[in-house]
Amino acid sequence: MTDDEVKEEVDELAVAQRERDEYLDALQRLKAEFDNYRKRVARDQEDLAARAHQRLLSSLVPVLDDLERALEAAAEHEEAKLEEGVRLVYRSLADLLAREGLVEVPTDGAFDPHTQEALLAQPSEEEEGTVIQVLQKGYKLGDLVLRPARVVISQGNGR
Amino acid sequence: MTDDEVKEEVDELAVAQRERDEYLDALQRLKAEFDNYRKRVARDQEDLAARAHQRLLSSLVPVLDDLERALEAAAEHEEAKLEEGVRLVYRSLADLLAREGLVEVPTDGAFDPHTQEALLAQPSEEEEGTVIQVLQKGYKLGDLVLRPARVVISQGNGR
Repeated sequence: MTDDEVKEEVDELAVAQRERDEYLDALQRLKAEFDNYRKRVARDQEDLAARAHQRLLSSLVPVLDDLERALEAAAEHEEAKLEEGVRLVYRSLADLLAREGLVEVPTDGAFDPHTQEALLAQPSEEEEGTVIQVLQKGYKLGDLVLRPARVVISQGNGR
Repeated sequence: MTDDEVKEEVDELAVAQRERDEYLDALQRLKAEFDNYRKRVARDQEDLAARAHQRLLSSLVPVLDDLERALEAAAEHEEAKLEEGVRLVYRSLADLLAREGLVEVPTDGAFDPHTQEALLAQPSEEEEGTVIQVLQKGYKLGDLVLRPARVVISQGNGR
């Protein structure tokens, strides 16, 4: 080896060592960051779910209050007040569920197997496959069917 | 430099370069893993919150059904059926909220400023600072007070 070659080797060693130290340092910092991130995520997920839960449960408390008041009216045999109370409770709960994204499954028109369940088929004036009666309302949340509508459909041979 | 020293430098260079390459490789793999983790977490958080939401909303649908049936009974002037229906709705909703962890704030005994709000103080036979009437029930979820109980407390000078 010439002196120049030796010098080159020594420089190369210094560069390689510096780079090695830098990469090791970056690796250790990234590991620590990743660990912290993982811990924070676990906490955040619990918080997020808890907050959504709290909010929804809080909004149900006044519905429970209204129901209690309706029951008090019933105990006093104040029938008009009882009926008014039930109407109020129904309105509050329906509004709350609508705000949360709950939508009634539409049942006007042709039977839709994705959102409806046909429990019966009956002869009727209506076109075959048309929904002629809703036995139980269905509900959707976005694209998700929480419960299909239970319906009676027309056999169409009543004409 | 002796030949031995040169040989040592060359060996050291090889080691430093190998280590550098290993650290760089590990760094790049960890970066990719971290990125994937971040993306998965974002998806999971949405899923988790959505599922909790869906479950709770689904369990409210039968409560809405019962309320509708109670209203139908009211429309038919079937008072006993209406009252029975309201009782049923109240029971379902109260049970559902209890299962979700909702607990009534206790109001027997001394006033508790952490879970109760005193709206009035009145002379009474009861010891000063005792809750003598509940104007509105309070609710807790674990340690969290969703709504304080609104109460009347005794001034204690009625004796």
